[in-house]
Amino acid sequence: MSVNTDQDRDGLTYRDAGVDIAAADALVARLRSLAAATHGPAVRPHTEAYAGLYELSSGPLLAATCDGVGTKLLIGQALGRYRGLGQDLVAMNVNDLLPCGARPLFFLDYVATGRLDGTALCELVAGMADACRAVGCALLGGETAEMPGVYGPGGLDLAGFAVGLAAPERLPQRQAMAPKDRVLGLASAGVHSNGLSLARRALDQAGIGLDVMLPELGSSPGEVLLAPTALYVAAVLAAFDRVGGAAGHIRAAAHVTGGGLLGRAAAMAPAGLRLRIDPSTYPRPPIFDVLARAGAISPREMARTFNMGLGFLLVTSPAAAKTLLAAPDSPWLDVGEVVAGDTGVDLGYAKSDA
Amino acid sequence: MSVNTDQDRDGLTYRDAGVDIAAADALVARLRSLAAATHGPAVRPHTEAYAGLYELSSGPLLAATCDGVGTKLLIGQALGRYRGLGQDLVAMNVNDLLPCGARPLFFLDYVATGRLDGTALCELVAGMADACRAVGCALLGGETAEMPGVYGPGGLDLAGFAVGLAAPERLPQRQAMAPKDRVLGLASAGVHSNGLSLARRALDQAGIGLDVMLPELGSSPGEVLLAPTALYVAAVLAAFDRVGGAAGHIRAAAHVTGGGLLGRAAAMAPAGLRLRIDPSTYPRPPIFDVLARAGAISPREMARTFNMGLGFLLVTSPAAAKTLLAAPDSPWLDVGEVVAGDTGVDLGYAKSDA
Repeated sequence: MSVNTDQDRDGLTYRDAGVDIAAADALVARLRSLAAATHGPAVRPHTEAYAGLYELSSGPLLAATCDGVGTKLLIGQALGRYRGLGQDLVAMNVNDLLPCGARPLFFLDYVATGRLDGTALCELVAGMADACRAVGCALLGGETAEMPGVYGPGGLDLAGFAVGLAAPERLPQRQAMAPKDRVLGLASAGVHSNGLSLARRALDQAGIGLDVMLPELGSSPGEVLLAPTALYVAAVLAAFDRVGGAAGHIRAAAHVTGGGLLGRAAAMAPAGLRLRIDPSTYPRPPIFDVLARAGAISPREMARTFNMGLGFLLVTSPAAAKTLLAAPDSPWLDVGEVVAGDTGVDLGYAKSDA
Repeated sequence: MSVNTDQDRDGLTYRDAGVDIAAADALVARLRSLAAATHGPAVRPHTEAYAGLYELSSGPLLAATCDGVGTKLLIGQALGRYRGLGQDLVAMNVNDLLPCGARPLFFLDYVATGRLDGTALCELVAGMADACRAVGCALLGGETAEMPGVYGPGGLDLAGFAVGLAAPERLPQRQAMAPKDRVLGLASAGVHSNGLSLARRALDQAGIGLDVMLPELGSSPGEVLLAPTALYVAAVLAAFDRVGGAAGHIRAAAHVTGGGLLGRAAAMAPAGLRLRIDPSTYPRPPIFDVLARAGAISPREMARTFNMGLGFLLVTSPAAAKTLLAAPDSPWLDVGEVVAGDTGVDLGYAKSDA
């Protein structure tokens, strides 16, 4: 159970952008306990949010996720661009399977609207199908609901569900994390599908239209914000194949989504350990500076909302990191290390609370 | 891939109620071909809509469904009643696994809103958890998205997703259907979660408020419409346990949802066979007469939209029917037979097209 939330207070914040769910944080515990009451022995507890794990009696472990694309929808609709949103929906779900080392098997989509626009729907589903094919996952089914009254004529929402196959011996072993472990990262394609409410609000506040050409972007903010969420399946599964397994070289993994780089990295740190991520080791897409300036958003709020350039994180043993980084055409960046200290994360320009 | 659609034209129709997606029918083929391009050999074709089937290399067959509750939401919101909608969401999904004989393993939910109402959310999730527990299914996870801008402050939508375990030898064998086979049914709890747009429009047209006491209902239309969708898991799995299997006594099964009793029964008939269902053999909840009168809805349009009292259908061999009907406390009703004739269905008061 996850609730998309954020509640910082300096400068323009996610909260200012209308996402005011301070109270919702307390709800999560309640929702979790309601769900836990339905869990038999087949449900396997684990720490690699946000997939659920279910053990079949025949042996394999199923991982399942559910996610949408948030208010990125509104930007796609404003620019009449749907295909990339299809990839976003698939990526938000299949990437969430990866921290468990799970290989995506199939995906289903829910598309709800007030009045069906066949062209937009075909573009969306074509984007989903392309992304599914790219990661070797079947688009197994879906539901398209036309609901006048729930949605206005131009209203639209998307939800996706993915199921993957995991192996118990391949789950990350967080308890093995130790000082000198390395933090590896995969570059993001931009904002992906989180923080778009804040992004829209910041641009709006600065009077910057979505379709205005900005030299520092070499494009318009709308184009850049719509860049589809990267698909990390191949890179992450290759890493699990290479260094994952019972020896525990993979300590933790995270798809950087809600909560931003700061929140997701902080959630990876066990008690007494600190992830130190060096901002000079990975590219920061210029859209983040455009947004920070437009909304006078504090570095901390930026890092609590956006991926800041890193879409996926992996903490491994030093030896495993060496192996992954040495592979030809390795997509992994060596972005930081684990140190003893206050539990949490230090991004160089923002830290998690003690 | 399913698209909720309907397009009849006599009296008040689903189309009049704002669900105008005649064009969408053509889309379904297009969407199906986009999805089919992602299907490897693990995806197993079958005729028991609406679950997808995926074969694990370790043997078991996974069935997966995705569905929402449509505009029933609006009635729940109007009356401030959410718990039953949680059961509706679970039922719409787990019941869709049953035509494959699949046992539900786990369920995930997507709840999207403009502004989070913690009380309503807890009621919804409590309803889901109760329903999951009742059918032995884990509420494995979910996503709650607060999306101002996509939804108004009171806006809300729900999508659910269920995965079940099927056995290839237990799949219904439609090719074995023959004259003298029996049609068995399970009583519905009322309108369940389909046709609510038409129901609301009909009541509105007749000036009947959702909260007005109607003697023939012994309640208000709002209360009666909100009766949660029945959970058919126990009854259907018991039938598969008793008479399912390689011998092929179970010919076809259907959860009666979009397309109504007429549409779903018609979809079960192989070429040259006709399902003849006798309306005197099952109870017709009085809400259907109230709606038909309120909207001057034709019997045919009623049957194309609503379940008319039968929420689940099973076609079996005569011997299997006898076994199921003779069981102590059997929930099955003996509602009709298979005859040679024009492919389709005859409900007594409405027929499918030749």
